[in-house]
Amino acid sequence: MLVVRTVAELCEEMARRDGPIGLVPTMGALHAGHLALVERAKDECETVVMSIFVNPAQFNDARDLATYPRDEERDLETAAEAGVDVVFLPDPVEMYPRGYATNIVVSGPVAETLEGAKRGRSHFDGVATVVAKLMIASAADAAYFGQKDAQQVIVVQRMVTDLGLPVRVVACPIVRDADGLALSSRNVHLSDEERARALAIPRSLNAIADAVAGGEIDARTLAARALDVLAEAEVLVEYIAFVDPDSLEPVDEIDREVLVAFAGSVGTTRLLDNIVIGPGSGTGEKSR
Amino acid sequence: MLVVRTVAELCEEMARRDGPIGLVPTMGALHAGHLALVERAKDECETVVMSIFVNPAQFNDARDLATYPRDEERDLETAAEAGVDVVFLPDPVEMYPRGYATNIVVSGPVAETLEGAKRGRSHFDGVATVVAKLMIASAADAAYFGQKDAQQVIVVQRMVTDLGLPVRVVACPIVRDADGLALSSRNVHLSDEERARALAIPRSLNAIADAVAGGEIDARTLAARALDVLAEAEVLVEYIAFVDPDSLEPVDEIDREVLVAFAGSVGTTRLLDNIVIGPGSGTGEKSR
Repeated sequence: MLVVRTVAELCEEMARRDGPIGLVPTMGALHAGHLALVERAKDECETVVMSIFVNPAQFNDARDLATYPRDEERDLETAAEAGVDVVFLPDPVEMYPRGYATNIVVSGPVAETLEGAKRGRSHFDGVATVVAKLMIASAADAAYFGQKDAQQVIVVQRMVTDLGLPVRVVACPIVRDADGLALSSRNVHLSDEERARALAIPRSLNAIADAVAGGEIDARTLAARALDVLAEAEVLVEYIAFVDPDSLEPVDEIDREVLVAFAGSVGTTRLLDNIVIGPGSGTGEKSR
Repeated sequence: MLVVRTVAELCEEMARRDGPIGLVPTMGALHAGHLALVERAKDECETVVMSIFVNPAQFNDARDLATYPRDEERDLETAAEAGVDVVFLPDPVEMYPRGYATNIVVSGPVAETLEGAKRGRSHFDGVATVVAKLMIASAADAAYFGQKDAQQVIVVQRMVTDLGLPVRVVACPIVRDADGLALSSRNVHLSDEERARALAIPRSLNAIADAVAGGEIDARTLAARALDVLAEAEVLVEYIAFVDPDSLEPVDEIDREVLVAFAGSVGTTRLLDNIVIGPGSGTGEKSR
């Protein structure tokens, strides 16, 4: 496995490669969710590039940036074992050198609602910009993202479509621990007691799926049911939103595929989760 | 010469081409300035793509957009005679389809001063975004711009550097009519009387160059001299700025290469011109 730290080295290396290139952008602190992306990329591409970059531009909260888990040595071992071909591991100053002045801004509900509203507009500007830079530098044919950050996938797809970048955006299903909790690098911050309470998150999403399977179609009623589950576990809810999976416009009834997106905190740890539900069938993906 | 009107056709055609691709982005109303760009592109590239697109996103003034000269038939003849290989001639809805939501924003003095201040921030957002889209769709190795729009070249170079687009940005010298007026598609709007007055613009820039050659180094004194020339011809001056040619930061003394940028109106026609001057030598490019 090759480790490169500059954009110039990455471009040079990628120019030498034949066949499709798959990009797995990460912020490190690798877990099985990331490895599922690598596996899918390996299935579909000749070369798999993983970027590991804790992108300051997408953090609205300095404390979150400072405490974001980092373990370069362990990540490199994990990536090598997973069969990654090239790891791109730049410093912030390599990505944003002196004089850097360009931002890619996605507007409208896909970027301004939910996480865009909670974390501030600049969050998705930071995501779109760094992902475009990584796609260009790696000459990627496909890029792999976890469906846990559902809105991120939508924003990235919007940016790729709008700019015409020749990259296929692939969303991979959420990977969960045996107990149902969606894998996230931030899960390491949870105490045992907090982790037990956090299980109310997938439980609340499953309660929604079960109710839909039972014939309930009203989003308000479904949200209320989920909020009961979350309140009991003292999960601090930021939102539980029923939205169109493409436009992120709110929906009132489950009369088609609907994305149910959760954000909230357990203790000081902010967590995301989501589920896609369809009419009658109840659920596109069970969150357990 | 092939004429294509969709991004998909352009991508497909470019994928079939071997060797370097040169992009000449234009808004049509072709003149000898554009043809100088084509000539340079033909010298350096195997395939020359010219885009003809009056980009609504970069117009701050609806009247200016409505009256911008358009003559598709004549432009296609001119491009064919000049040896252009492929013309890309999209509709606005092809470049900005329904749901389009992405903007490339360059911040700081390079985009916010001079034209950025006069035409509004969104002008250069529109330029940067459309140029990036054209570069990506044409898979260009080099892109050719006229030095008359000096700030545009700087903003495009900043965007290309920051995003890491694999495109060489080439600035070509201003082409002038025999009387000294810098070629511009907007010159057709000038009456004979206005055109005669507009000649004060290159004359004022040459007066600066001559004064610098004569030992004057104070930007204020030089500007005053130019303003006298322009006032006499009743040219309405928006700015005559002495700035660093890379950062666009204002300079007080001609102690290195300095870009002198003019913007103003004759009648209802807004015109740009500029000259690069150096200490002692007086001028990097004589504007006559």
